[in-house]
Amino acid sequence: MSSSKRNDYSEQSLEAHKKYGGKLSIESKMPLDTREDLSIAYTPGVAKPCSEIAEDTSTAYDYTWKKNSVAVVSDGSAVLGLGNIGPEASLPVMEGKCVLFKKFADVDAVPVVLDTQEPDEIIAAVKAIAPTYGGINLEDIAAPNCFKIERRLKKELDIPVMHDDQHGTAVVTLAGMINAMRVTGRKMSELKIVINGSGAAGVAIVKLLQHVGVQEVIMCDSRGILYEGRSEMNAIKKKMAEITNRHTIKGSLGDALEDADVFIGVSVPGVLSKKMIQRMRNNPIIFAMANPIPEIMPDEAHKAGAHIIATGRSDFPNQINNVLAFPGLFRGVLNARARDITYKMYSAAAYAIADCVEDPTPEEIIPSAFDRRVAQKVAETVEDVSKEN
Amino acid sequence: MSSSKRNDYSEQSLEAHKKYGGKLSIESKMPLDTREDLSIAYTPGVAKPCSEIAEDTSTAYDYTWKKNSVAVVSDGSAVLGLGNIGPEASLPVMEGKCVLFKKFADVDAVPVVLDTQEPDEIIAAVKAIAPTYGGINLEDIAAPNCFKIERRLKKELDIPVMHDDQHGTAVVTLAGMINAMRVTGRKMSELKIVINGSGAAGVAIVKLLQHVGVQEVIMCDSRGILYEGRSEMNAIKKKMAEITNRHTIKGSLGDALEDADVFIGVSVPGVLSKKMIQRMRNNPIIFAMANPIPEIMPDEAHKAGAHIIATGRSDFPNQINNVLAFPGLFRGVLNARARDITYKMYSAAAYAIADCVEDPTPEEIIPSAFDRRVAQKVAETVEDVSKEN
Repeated sequence: MSSSKRNDYSEQSLEAHKKYGGKLSIESKMPLDTREDLSIAYTPGVAKPCSEIAEDTSTAYDYTWKKNSVAVVSDGSAVLGLGNIGPEASLPVMEGKCVLFKKFADVDAVPVVLDTQEPDEIIAAVKAIAPTYGGINLEDIAAPNCFKIERRLKKELDIPVMHDDQHGTAVVTLAGMINAMRVTGRKMSELKIVINGSGAAGVAIVKLLQHVGVQEVIMCDSRGILYEGRSEMNAIKKKMAEITNRHTIKGSLGDALEDADVFIGVSVPGVLSKKMIQRMRNNPIIFAMANPIPEIMPDEAHKAGAHIIATGRSDFPNQINNVLAFPGLFRGVLNARARDITYKMYSAAAYAIADCVEDPTPEEIIPSAFDRRVAQKVAETVEDVSKEN
Repeated sequence: MSSSKRNDYSEQSLEAHKKYGGKLSIESKMPLDTREDLSIAYTPGVAKPCSEIAEDTSTAYDYTWKKNSVAVVSDGSAVLGLGNIGPEASLPVMEGKCVLFKKFADVDAVPVVLDTQEPDEIIAAVKAIAPTYGGINLEDIAAPNCFKIERRLKKELDIPVMHDDQHGTAVVTLAGMINAMRVTGRKMSELKIVINGSGAAGVAIVKLLQHVGVQEVIMCDSRGILYEGRSEMNAIKKKMAEITNRHTIKGSLGDALEDADVFIGVSVPGVLSKKMIQRMRNNPIIFAMANPIPEIMPDEAHKAGAHIIATGRSDFPNQINNVLAFPGLFRGVLNARARDITYKMYSAAAYAIADCVEDPTPEEIIPSAFDRRVAQKVAETVEDVSKEN
């Protein structure tokens, strides 16, 4: 299998993490060379910005890092493809997220990994530390806890909160879908879309697709199609069964794919077969985003007739990579000093990402993860949407 | 009054905080310029350090920022001379502390300000976020809550925890006292010391002085001398009354000072009069550390016969400044990967600071806050003590 041969950068990464001692460094933006510098940055001068903020808390955005800071919060319960590895082991990923925030959107992000996986304790901890930051990026928190945690924090905090595994993935998926429509001439409202995987990403993708007008969605989990009345469904799956699968189709993933236009996989390697693709409508669109090994390898999908193929990988065309979304999303809400981050912002961000591909083709529905214009365009769009409200 | 005329840097500080947008910037230590760089810092390579830490949590010190990171935690309840100004308003001070950590000891410190002033909630929040950091610096948390919070966190966490307002101040005070002994030829064990102020700093100073052999200490609060059986004392003052004031002297601050060698003020401006100093033993030692205006101005104290005078101010000789202690203390425990920070380390750090003054005189018992050797020497000493255990 080709994926087993490619360099996974394991040893280089281990070596680099050891050599540098992690990835993050805290630096002062103010000079600190003279006694006067210290009197301005610290005592006695610092008493003045403190007093100003004490009189009007909102001026914390003028005088502190709050205007530009995001906490990347995880309980280590669903990290990459590694699963529930705990808080310390998730730190390299969270630090990585932080350096991407800086590189792509000049956001000062710091990791916060939590010694608890109890939703109420996570909520309490994040609420306690929230005054420190301008935004909260929840990361790698397992479903279904992630839904409750995000919902409660969005409601109870006055700064933007986003679970990136849900909405970052959904925004970039929607961006790809927008350009897939442009390439194929199909319309969102006429698509039949099957989503395999009912975790954080799957649920958020469905909600965002419905937000932009998709009518026919079927979700599957490892037991097959979600439908009302099916057994072995948690609360969120029950809810998703209610708002999807309007014809109450039952059966396997293969059955769901009958005459579908689109397959979106946020599940596990290898679960999509060529035969299943052949049951789909002609020239189907395949987003096989399991990482690092997709639901079907692109060459196999092509052989089965797939017209447009996207994966999570950088070594194939059309990489669905959250880095296209989260830096610009937070840059935008921080610039706007928004108190929330909304579905309207998510869909606007997706269109902004899609628009960065000037001439979409089956091999290019998604801009490069290195395209620096993307975060800027997303940020401007999100800031504009925020100010409309 | 001379203090009202000196530049307090208010307007320059406000301007600088606005111009720079706070003081902290997060930077990447690893290169992020190429696709390969990203594959090493983030996916797919990052899975390897994650897996290593999942197998052995202690390797988080090898592969993450934990080896070098400290959280500067405050509830904003006792900030500088400003009092209970809340979490957002305390951020400029906490960011200032963080840049000092970097400048003097290359420690990566980040602020964490808390939306609660309930000790149990503070303890729960800090315990929840603790896996993220190599140490916890509690800051500007009011007495008596600070004592319970520090005690519980020290007991329940496996990383060093220190309340700087207590121990940072105590360490530098002890350093000054060590050199005051060298200048005057007196002995710690023979001193009579009066401490005015029974908050965080006062309590910690008494405990550290007793740790190094001081026998006779009297504490005062705004109502006068603490003695066993006095009314209007909280739990910590009751405890301090038990372990100090061995002759159960009652009365005012002036009464306490009768024949005392040393006055240590961690209280409020102007409470020490010339007459009170005249009741002390000849050539008394005066540490008047109320900020920004001391318990007595140095020129007044000299007129009353004071031999050695220290304050908290940079515009007089002998500035008792925590920056001489906390950066090196945390550098030392981080280098040692110590699980705790102890009184033995505090006293060793005080001797290390004192030793940085090669030839102590009444005008120089404390090294300059800009002396870069101090943090290094403190760090080495603390690391050595840690390894002895």
